[in-house]
Amino acid sequence: MGKMDKIDIDKYKITDGSKFSLADYSTNEKKKSLDKEGGAALLQNDIEELAALQDVLYADNRHAVLIVIQAMDAAGKDGTIKHIMSGVNPAGVTVTSFKSPTANELDHDFFWRHYIALPGKGEIGIFNRSHYENVLITKVHPEFILNEKHSKIKNVKDIDKSFWQDRYKEICRFEKNLVENDTTILKFFLHVSKDEQKKRFLDRIDDPKKNWKFSTADLKERAFWDDYQSAYEDAIKNTSTKSAPWFVIPADEKWYSRYLIGKIICSELKKLDLEYPVISDTERKALITAKEALLKE
Amino acid sequence: MGKMDKIDIDKYKITDGSKFSLADYSTNEKKKSLDKEGGAALLQNDIEELAALQDVLYADNRHAVLIVIQAMDAAGKDGTIKHIMSGVNPAGVTVTSFKSPTANELDHDFFWRHYIALPGKGEIGIFNRSHYENVLITKVHPEFILNEKHSKIKNVKDIDKSFWQDRYKEICRFEKNLVENDTTILKFFLHVSKDEQKKRFLDRIDDPKKNWKFSTADLKERAFWDDYQSAYEDAIKNTSTKSAPWFVIPADEKWYSRYLIGKIICSELKKLDLEYPVISDTERKALITAKEALLKE
Repeated sequence: MGKMDKIDIDKYKITDGSKFSLADYSTNEKKKSLDKEGGAALLQNDIEELAALQDVLYADNRHAVLIVIQAMDAAGKDGTIKHIMSGVNPAGVTVTSFKSPTANELDHDFFWRHYIALPGKGEIGIFNRSHYENVLITKVHPEFILNEKHSKIKNVKDIDKSFWQDRYKEICRFEKNLVENDTTILKFFLHVSKDEQKKRFLDRIDDPKKNWKFSTADLKERAFWDDYQSAYEDAIKNTSTKSAPWFVIPADEKWYSRYLIGKIICSELKKLDLEYPVISDTERKALITAKEALLKE
Repeated sequence: MGKMDKIDIDKYKITDGSKFSLADYSTNEKKKSLDKEGGAALLQNDIEELAALQDVLYADNRHAVLIVIQAMDAAGKDGTIKHIMSGVNPAGVTVTSFKSPTANELDHDFFWRHYIALPGKGEIGIFNRSHYENVLITKVHPEFILNEKHSKIKNVKDIDKSFWQDRYKEICRFEKNLVENDTTILKFFLHVSKDEQKKRFLDRIDDPKKNWKFSTADLKERAFWDDYQSAYEDAIKNTSTKSAPWFVIPADEKWYSRYLIGKIICSELKKLDLEYPVISDTERKALITAKEALLKE
């Protein structure tokens, strides 16, 4: 297990999307040397490390961390957030799940509702689905774009290749501005196979405790599987940068994907020069004076 | 007065900042052919036209309009907004005045508080002071940047030329994303002379009804006049683009600056293809059926 812990996380990281192809990435990479129980133990180490890192991130108060989680239905978004973040002080973490935009949100540019939810300094913000839905679900169902009431788009035929290229560039500008202002952006795609989704859907239908997680609409979206894969590939290709990388995570084994994501978040946070604020000599003297006053009481 | 109405507004518009010099722009351009009363009458025409344009902007519901007003103290920001916008339906206009940022605002990137206040489709949003303060007051007083707790800025010496160049680029990215998503951005610098500011400050001190508008802090800032002029020049030079132009408005004569700004806003809004929504034949038939039902009651 010591070896597993030194896993090469750069293998999953895309800092230059130009040559990206989703076919190069596996959905299942279970290591023979590691089983579910061993993985859970390692994840536990990462959870504790993450809690410690979050503590100093909060005290340091100079960096914000934005974690984007995107995936097909049943790929494990909610479970990943639950398992990885459960050890962290909720005072410093906010999870925002983005559903269908409201009328007020549609009245603004597509970043607006995400901008409002961005983490402040010292905070970790998790986007469960994100601004990327604007080049994913809307690319598979371009009729949704009409709800945004663009001045130059009268019907679906007006949504051409350059429309999507502009959106990718807009996303890159948005992220670049954030990164330049001390937000660390980590984007995760939970890469699950169509077969594994089928299994999980069947499980949600069969297990009464999981029924609430399944909607017949999920099956309808499954019919667009190839379109979604293609939309993900295009998005990752056009928005992977050194400063805001994508991580493509094999997600057919839940515990392995969680273990990997925990490890990656810890590894990336350790690259920041986080430190507990050091007080000045003057402040130190004031502390000593305060202590003396207290002891004399 | 007919001639005055055909004034060349492009003269005040900067769509390419690369050769911009503030010295090329006058603070006083009173036309001999126009006096205060004549100007007020013309402004009244523009106010009525603006009200009509705002009505169709609102109904059309595809464009947002962001008007940025920046200026030295006492240059006429509040009065301009009051006079030009008073005829417009307040349901479609929001004025946001930006003061010193709060602790929560400082915890986010510097666009955050402005992003939240952006106008939605069909709306006019006016920023009385704006995201530009982040390259104006902070450039004159770089110690304010330290409040933003940047990870790479330990003291004022770390704030170098490239820091400001990055900010200008960030502003251009921010504005480009908005423009690409149907926000029209009009940026006005009310260009007032140092002598005129002196007159207006003295007036605020002498007139009891205006005392509340004057603070001794205003006099302290006046001492940095040249630094501010230089910061404005740099900002306009680096952020004037075809899609988000600056307008440098001679502001020593209040009525003239108001008249000019009203004229420019109307002129720019007329370039949008605003139209009242046209209903389809099916919807038309439904209206006729509804009418018949009502008449039969």
